[in-house]
Amino acid sequence: MAGNAVATNKRVVLKRHVTGFPMEEDMEVVVDTVRLRVPAGSPAVLVQNLYLSCDPWMRGRMSKHDDGGAAETAPDFVVGEWVLGPPQFPTGKVIDSTHPEFKAGDLVWGMSGWEEYTLVSKSESLFKINHTELPLSYYTGVLGLTGFTAYASFMEVGRPKKGDFVFVSSASGAVGQVAGQLAKIAGCYVVGSAGSDEKVDLLKTKFGFDDTFNYKSETDLAAALKRCLPDGIDIYVDNMGGATLDAGLLNMRWGGRVVVCGMISQYNLEEQYGLRNMYRIIPKALRVEGFNVTGYFHMYSRFEEEMAGYIKEGKVVVVQDVVEGIESAPTALIGLFSGKNVGKQLVALIRE
Amino acid sequence: MAGNAVATNKRVVLKRHVTGFPMEEDMEVVVDTVRLRVPAGSPAVLVQNLYLSCDPWMRGRMSKHDDGGAAETAPDFVVGEWVLGPPQFPTGKVIDSTHPEFKAGDLVWGMSGWEEYTLVSKSESLFKINHTELPLSYYTGVLGLTGFTAYASFMEVGRPKKGDFVFVSSASGAVGQVAGQLAKIAGCYVVGSAGSDEKVDLLKTKFGFDDTFNYKSETDLAAALKRCLPDGIDIYVDNMGGATLDAGLLNMRWGGRVVVCGMISQYNLEEQYGLRNMYRIIPKALRVEGFNVTGYFHMYSRFEEEMAGYIKEGKVVVVQDVVEGIESAPTALIGLFSGKNVGKQLVALIRE
Repeated sequence: MAGNAVATNKRVVLKRHVTGFPMEEDMEVVVDTVRLRVPAGSPAVLVQNLYLSCDPWMRGRMSKHDDGGAAETAPDFVVGEWVLGPPQFPTGKVIDSTHPEFKAGDLVWGMSGWEEYTLVSKSESLFKINHTELPLSYYTGVLGLTGFTAYASFMEVGRPKKGDFVFVSSASGAVGQVAGQLAKIAGCYVVGSAGSDEKVDLLKTKFGFDDTFNYKSETDLAAALKRCLPDGIDIYVDNMGGATLDAGLLNMRWGGRVVVCGMISQYNLEEQYGLRNMYRIIPKALRVEGFNVTGYFHMYSRFEEEMAGYIKEGKVVVVQDVVEGIESAPTALIGLFSGKNVGKQLVALIRE
Repeated sequence: MAGNAVATNKRVVLKRHVTGFPMEEDMEVVVDTVRLRVPAGSPAVLVQNLYLSCDPWMRGRMSKHDDGGAAETAPDFVVGEWVLGPPQFPTGKVIDSTHPEFKAGDLVWGMSGWEEYTLVSKSESLFKINHTELPLSYYTGVLGLTGFTAYASFMEVGRPKKGDFVFVSSASGAVGQVAGQLAKIAGCYVVGSAGSDEKVDLLKTKFGFDDTFNYKSETDLAAALKRCLPDGIDIYVDNMGGATLDAGLLNMRWGGRVVVCGMISQYNLEEQYGLRNMYRIIPKALRVEGFNVTGYFHMYSRFEEEMAGYIKEGKVVVVQDVVEGIESAPTALIGLFSGKNVGKQLVALIRE
């Protein structure tokens, strides 16, 4: 590649900070250029992004916080300046590298941006893809951040035992579908909730959940849980927060673990739902733990091997919702909050 | 003692189930008789109770729950039939025993009733008192259930490290005063809140807290915590629940532990406070754990030796609020909910 080669680089930019429900108009796609060579200086890796990830937690960064987001997972996005991310976790191909561990042509996933090309200087957040025999897009899902979140949260925080009763909310989503299948592998009885009959059907027919309910057609979530899990819940993997979490707390068994991976029902609210059932943690000796994957990356290699094995054996199946082209990214992201996606939401930039 | 000897046995009986704030009239003292000999049959221990304990969690059993209290710590009290307890944890003296491990004259604490004499058949919940050189009343407090709760919750769930920032709510109370002093022994920086200037003064002058505030004179609890702990909280031992817990959640540091031993602000409410800050558990990777001492009794002997040592060395000091006679018990119990007690609330039946 010629040292001076330049390409266009489309990026998603935040146009304004968001209050309430995000809209397409809050973002825009701008066209920039990128030199296809890593500049001289400290080691860096130029990645051409192939699949971008749409994740509910990105919503938090679109708000303007008084402290700039210091108390949040990551700082607020800066209007007009940054692409939406980093940190984002796309899958991509190395175009050029001055880092000894990466070379042109390597397939990678990790910390990158919502754009076509990203110059990654923090290479400790970039992972080489070992299982190139599997669909590359899996590394922006089941083998990437969301699959790893499901694995580390369920195994390390949930600590499943054979026969445990497990409830997964938002169960057809990126984290939920993997958590539910891991629970089946661990010998648990697994119930999942989702927001449409189509998704509920997927839970049973594709992912092997033992029982399910559509939370949008239930008038009493606690009663729905009691119906599906009359003996209560040992492990609750929560991706919803709010009323679902409140109902779950009422149905936990002695010593139960509530692993909170997300609270998608809360991200667009100006005032958070007031949880009234937290008092149950005392009589039932419950542990409620917020999961943040940052502390678990040392386990990634073990996870990658284990999960690749499950996929090849057919023990874990994958449902993805893929849209094409970076121009589709803002709409796809917003769709998460009305539950438009079925399975892990991806944006394919180039199919490889 | 003659085999047919009989004594009067005053007991506290629940007159009616309670809604909202409990009143003296909800309980009454009845006079019964007791044969001072364990009846023939399975092994049992007849205990003369010397010190009764008043504990906030007893309030839950005074309500009538739809499920009879099955989902609570212990079943609802039955009106007119049961004394207030068991399980209660008084200190007493064995009068007669057919159990091989106990003999007349032994001093014990454990599962017993709010009455003058209790026939204990579940002797696995009865502990022999080893440190008779210490005030006997300590076994209904710092060396009994509340001290043990503070120890096991702080050490096993809180897992303190030297230099950790610790916050204890209701810090002059039975659990709080012990948790705060254990935190100092562990090399932590400890802040406590209490509901009167007198109690706040105790925290500093008696118990060695580094900083304190009177929560009743603060308009913004989160700001008070930020003022006392500008770098945030690593371990929060909560005895309050409600608004205090909500403010604490906002001030936790990455990886913080919230050990919830009680929620005294909530026990008399018909509708629980709605917690709005639980979402912070995700970005801060927080663990919120409800503490129930039932799972920890295997540690009791270790605790008894360690705590007796701290008391003798003056590293743990004790403040108790003792009233005399079983007739005073209902008023003393109710006083907990308006914060009338200063320190652990006891009822002395016979001073030994």
